[in-house]
Amino acid sequence: MNQDYIKADPWSVIEEGFDKEQVKSSESLFSIGNGAMGQRANFEEQYSGETFQGSYIAGVYYPDKTRVGWWKNGYPEYFAKVLNAPNWIGIDVFINGEPLDLNTCKSVSNFKRELNMKEGWYKRSFTATMPNNFEVAIEVTRFLCVDLDEVGAIQYNLQVLNANAEVILLPYLDSGITNEDSNWEDKFWNTTKITSDDNRAFIESHTMKTNFAVCTFMQTALHIDGDKVDASPITKKDELSIGNSYSVEVKKNEKVTLTKYGGYTVDRNHSKDQLLKAANTVLDQASKYGFETLLQKQIEAWAKIWEMSDITIEGDVKAQQGIRFNIFQLNQTYLGKDSRLNIGPKGFTGEKYGGSTYWDTEAYCLPFYMATKNQDVAWNLLEYRYNHLEKAIENAEKLGFKNGVALYPMVTMNGEECHNEWEITFEEIHRNGAIAFAIYNYHRFTGDYSYIPKMGMEVLIGIARFWHQRTNFSEDKQKYVMLGVTGPNEYENNVNNNWYTNYLAKWCINYALEQLDVIKDKYSEDYKILVSKTKLTSAETEDWAKAANNMYFPFSEKHQVYLQQDGFLDKEMIKVEDLSRSDRPINQKWSWDRILRSPYIKQADVLQGFYFFEDDFTNEELEKHFDFYEPFTVHESSLSPCVHSIQAAKLGRMDQAYTFYLRTSRLDLDDYNKEVEEGLHITSMAGTWMSIVEGFGGMRVKNNQLCFTPQIPKQWTSYSFKINFRNQIVTITVSEKGTDFEISGSNELMIQVNDKQVKLLPGKIVHV
Amino acid sequence: MNQDYIKADPWSVIEEGFDKEQVKSSESLFSIGNGAMGQRANFEEQYSGETFQGSYIAGVYYPDKTRVGWWKNGYPEYFAKVLNAPNWIGIDVFINGEPLDLNTCKSVSNFKRELNMKEGWYKRSFTATMPNNFEVAIEVTRFLCVDLDEVGAIQYNLQVLNANAEVILLPYLDSGITNEDSNWEDKFWNTTKITSDDNRAFIESHTMKTNFAVCTFMQTALHIDGDKVDASPITKKDELSIGNSYSVEVKKNEKVTLTKYGGYTVDRNHSKDQLLKAANTVLDQASKYGFETLLQKQIEAWAKIWEMSDITIEGDVKAQQGIRFNIFQLNQTYLGKDSRLNIGPKGFTGEKYGGSTYWDTEAYCLPFYMATKNQDVAWNLLEYRYNHLEKAIENAEKLGFKNGVALYPMVTMNGEECHNEWEITFEEIHRNGAIAFAIYNYHRFTGDYSYIPKMGMEVLIGIARFWHQRTNFSEDKQKYVMLGVTGPNEYENNVNNNWYTNYLAKWCINYALEQLDVIKDKYSEDYKILVSKTKLTSAETEDWAKAANNMYFPFSEKHQVYLQQDGFLDKEMIKVEDLSRSDRPINQKWSWDRILRSPYIKQADVLQGFYFFEDDFTNEELEKHFDFYEPFTVHESSLSPCVHSIQAAKLGRMDQAYTFYLRTSRLDLDDYNKEVEEGLHITSMAGTWMSIVEGFGGMRVKNNQLCFTPQIPKQWTSYSFKINFRNQIVTITVSEKGTDFEISGSNELMIQVNDKQVKLLPGKIVHV
Repeated sequence: MNQDYIKADPWSVIEEGFDKEQVKSSESLFSIGNGAMGQRANFEEQYSGETFQGSYIAGVYYPDKTRVGWWKNGYPEYFAKVLNAPNWIGIDVFINGEPLDLNTCKSVSNFKRELNMKEGWYKRSFTATMPNNFEVAIEVTRFLCVDLDEVGAIQYNLQVLNANAEVILLPYLDSGITNEDSNWEDKFWNTTKITSDDNRAFIESHTMKTNFAVCTFMQTALHIDGDKVDASPITKKDELSIGNSYSVEVKKNEKVTLTKYGGYTVDRNHSKDQLLKAANTVLDQASKYGFETLLQKQIEAWAKIWEMSDITIEGDVKAQQGIRFNIFQLNQTYLGKDSRLNIGPKGFTGEKYGGSTYWDTEAYCLPFYMATKNQDVAWNLLEYRYNHLEKAIENAEKLGFKNGVALYPMVTMNGEECHNEWEITFEEIHRNGAIAFAIYNYHRFTGDYSYIPKMGMEVLIGIARFWHQRTNFSEDKQKYVMLGVTGPNEYENNVNNNWYTNYLAKWCINYALEQLDVIKDKYSEDYKILVSKTKLTSAETEDWAKAANNMYFPFSEKHQVYLQQDGFLDKEMIKVEDLSRSDRPINQKWSWDRILRSPYIKQADVLQGFYFFEDDFTNEELEKHFDFYEPFTVHESSLSPCVHSIQAAKLGRMDQAYTFYLRTSRLDLDDYNKEVEEGLHITSMAGTWMSIVEGFGGMRVKNNQLCFTPQIPKQWTSYSFKINFRNQIVTITVSEKGTDFEISGSNELMIQVNDKQVKLLPGKIVHV
Repeated sequence: MNQDYIKADPWSVIEEGFDKEQVKSSESLFSIGNGAMGQRANFEEQYSGETFQGSYIAGVYYPDKTRVGWWKNGYPEYFAKVLNAPNWIGIDVFINGEPLDLNTCKSVSNFKRELNMKEGWYKRSFTATMPNNFEVAIEVTRFLCVDLDEVGAIQYNLQVLNANAEVILLPYLDSGITNEDSNWEDKFWNTTKITSDDNRAFIESHTMKTNFAVCTFMQTALHIDGDKVDASPITKKDELSIGNSYSVEVKKNEKVTLTKYGGYTVDRNHSKDQLLKAANTVLDQASKYGFETLLQKQIEAWAKIWEMSDITIEGDVKAQQGIRFNIFQLNQTYLGKDSRLNIGPKGFTGEKYGGSTYWDTEAYCLPFYMATKNQDVAWNLLEYRYNHLEKAIENAEKLGFKNGVALYPMVTMNGEECHNEWEITFEEIHRNGAIAFAIYNYHRFTGDYSYIPKMGMEVLIGIARFWHQRTNFSEDKQKYVMLGVTGPNEYENNVNNNWYTNYLAKWCINYALEQLDVIKDKYSEDYKILVSKTKLTSAETEDWAKAANNMYFPFSEKHQVYLQQDGFLDKEMIKVEDLSRSDRPINQKWSWDRILRSPYIKQADVLQGFYFFEDDFTNEELEKHFDFYEPFTVHESSLSPCVHSIQAAKLGRMDQAYTFYLRTSRLDLDDYNKEVEEGLHITSMAGTWMSIVEGFGGMRVKNNQLCFTPQIPKQWTSYSFKINFRNQIVTITVSEKGTDFEISGSNELMIQVNDKQVKLLPGKIVHV
């Protein structure tokens, strides 16, 4: 671990004491979001120290012109970037003319940050002696409303502790913001109008190129010791910003409270010319409620979220804090309300990566959202890809594929590829399979088939076509092979016959063929439309089947394992445990060629296939492959330990499973990768959830039935989680003494526990 | 071909007629150089149209900070760039206050450029009607002195044809220049001092970071109808430039002649504080000679060069022009005087690529320089690499190698790597073998062993060490394998067991071991020093031998050919001739992944091995491999056709050999690749020479003897070339009727012609 300054607490993330070195890390860790927008925990008042400013609006991005050292044909021209949006949280503070700036204060004491995950708010407080010797006490509470998701609220409390003083509070909006990761120092925003109306102010702007229109707004009010200061603020305006300046004479210890509501209205939700009006409407609503009621509603909204998604752990407060931090961040990033949005790898906590959607969504996040939300959230995630199908077909065409082949991008915002490393962009094509698998997984978990004839089948056809065209018949092997791919283990590039990719390809084609039969049989109208739209012929599907049924899988007779790719056994097979400490992590210590020719595995690759398709293999096969590959796995992707944790648990190796779990749950809180200041690892947080629910809890859905094989790490007294299984909420509590199952609602449910059928009756705890 | 505006002429490159679209192409094609400096054929007077300004000084470069999309460990921090140097050719012209600018003239007639390759000068002439209706006739002659290689001369003749006029001529120096390919818009030059002395002016500047100090200088004089204008020019000076302004009233048709000498003195040749003095010295020399004498000396110098290196072709003037253009450009780029310099892929004709030294030097250029210059030129090319040995060891260390392993860079200026594509930089390691092969080739051709104990052996040890460490033992194959390489065919990346690389590795180790034995035996003092310096042990050399003797070579039993790499036969083996025209060139039409998984070969790969090591294989084996690989070869590297031409000739397929030859000899003149405006392909020009001498002429050195198997393309009447073999000049003239051999000097020489021994006696032509 790289840091341990976060205080252990079951429900809150807490920092105590002011350390300038931690400011950027804490800005990430104390980030807040509500699915529609989010922001780093930047200070409201000015700060001249090291800081990384960030406020982000879901779905608002900029296509930055690609900048690479050496251009390769097929690279996308643009790289869609998460865009830093106008700042609405700023509140400058002046005491007798001197700005309050934590970087220049003579001393700072009682500095504390708290991110209350249970209630969804962030508070910061401190006492500081300013250069002019005024002592001030500050307490700021901030949250982004989950229900009224266009607005956030700030309550900024200030006391001068040692004298009477002239206090100026200057809450402002600022559209003069930039991205740190700009490729060409482009201007990303164009500000068109800045207006104010008494204590409200508005900045209308739009993004360059994409032309997303945004109205950034605020409303401010000042109280002294609870009494409203009636005088209107003085408007301070320049080309890119606007502020409401309040100047008051305050007595020693009098409490000045600035309340600020702010946020964005965007043209995804309103027509472009109604953004200002919509901003006024949302401010009317917010001010009708007032700060305290808004906060109360926030607490209620988060209570609802937690009711379904909380995992409790008894006997290990750090583990408890870790898992809640992960669940909290996933919910801050995506609440599933809008099928046009997705789960960015850094959520609303930083700029890095660009794009918002990786295969992480389908492979790692979907199970979490399926089990902790209503079914329509998972549907929205699936529909997102359906809506991008046309772009996926264009993407495949750019790479030379024809006839409705779909290749979903490695990273995307709007369906277009926005990545540019040839070995990933063009070759890490297994992502396409994850999108098909998610369709299967959705049906398996929810029992809802309706997505497939309506949308999913068309996606499955495009994907099956891709695999068929991407394989070729090897005269030499008399089999279909797949050349030049990168598997989930990105420490191998441009390999031939990656087993995982070949297996997934075969599975995708077979699954598509099976669903075609189902639809032909049971949804004949949909079938006709599909065939006409996709121009699918039986000759084509026969060709698919030929490739799938005659696919090549590299296998070692000696080791009795499938090989990660052709030639894997030519490597120098030194296990990770025999590497020198100074060689790790290899992605920081070794040159790329050395990594590539080594046997080391970044994240589950063959084992990812054993995870997706575990029913296709015996436990003995899993064990053999796990024992063959895990010793070469360096787990240098945040997505690696969870799959291994689940498989170790399945093999009954709870100590190993727990070790893997530990590597995921506090990855950001303890900053294992020394990069938390750039933002959080949102998508891998779903893997932590999976480690507990699918790993320790052994949750599966088989034959339309919820199944469990509960185990508990010896470090814990008990743990508990809930599963929303087809609109029935099952609570599972595991302790050393056994497992309790409880079902809400009024219907009974048959589940399977350790291969035995168990009937759950509402209102009755079943102990197994 | 992309253009055909160059007039056919045996000795000159000629353009007639002014076409703005051709300006940048012609700036490349009419480039002049003298090994120490060079410049694109930019106009002296101002030009507001599309132009690519370039003046370059050998060995003066700038380490531009690497800019890539995605950083990989091991990438060099800097990319050494050929640097655009201060402009000394500029002469602004004003007629009655109006600037002469070919882009704005009302009409331009009789525009002609001539690059006289025989005599080494460039002339441009035209008549133009200016916007103010003055008609001017211009004739400019320019050359860079081969002997006095710090200086060039310009004679700028001007007549006003239709009226008396006020003419201002403003020759200047300008250090306000930039590189078009700058990564970060860095400032590359710092100008420290601008001075003038009567009709001389000087700009002292140095490059940023590398701190190369350069004094750019000029001396000017004006004549009217041959009479010197005595008045001193008026100095015009600003921050980055200085000019000598001559203002004269001229009568209609009077001839105004501005003579300008200019150039650079650099701190590679003088101490930093003596650059100005050195500039004055060289100007003293130049002005002592005067323009006409300088020109005469230039003609003599080029006559000497041609005496040794000319190839004449009877019956095909375009072929004649093509081969002379190639030989001319090679000599303009590198004359072999300085072992600190090398042969840049674009010479002094453009910026692209950066770095100056590729494996092209050893594999393609060395044979040309060995056969057409004195032995010390080839020695200098070899010594260049010896001087970089320490950097090559550092380069290998950066990639994780230890104990004196040397990996020469893919591209370099000073020995450090300056390339940053992982698949090339880290994996196209066969370049290391070419450097060892060049040592062997030098000894084979010159018979001079002295380089090896003195310098070469140390290089060979570093290289042998590299191959030994870069291979690993495959338990699976029970052989040594080499994983993750890119062969000469760059359309395959990160492959295993590239046959060429494995073969070269084995050869390098064996050659190093053999030379070690020779040195131990015959140069025991050198041997002791070597062993002590390199810490070489017999245990280590035994390990080398083990790897070399047990190297794995992929082989197809079915096709009876060595495979380019593991898995080559898994590809979809569609021949190039069966590809659609619209798919070609694949490097412009296909995405990179598609190229990679295709069987298409960019340039000789297995066949490069058959070229280097032809004596290891029978003609039947060559034929089998040629017929297997050539049909999949797209020849999209300028280095490809020459090797195939030589091999086709060896197989007696002269039509095919000639077809390949045609693709190389006029590559730039006819702009086959649509990019000549960026500069010329200098290093591949040596391949054209090889096609004739080694291909058609069948020249080889075997057992210390010069051998020939002459053939002639049926399109030619005869051709002739010379070989400097161990200080004896042999002239070979091939016609349909047979071959004539003639030897200069006073000693006889036994050569082999078509397997027969032939004795050459001085002064006697032997007809075979």
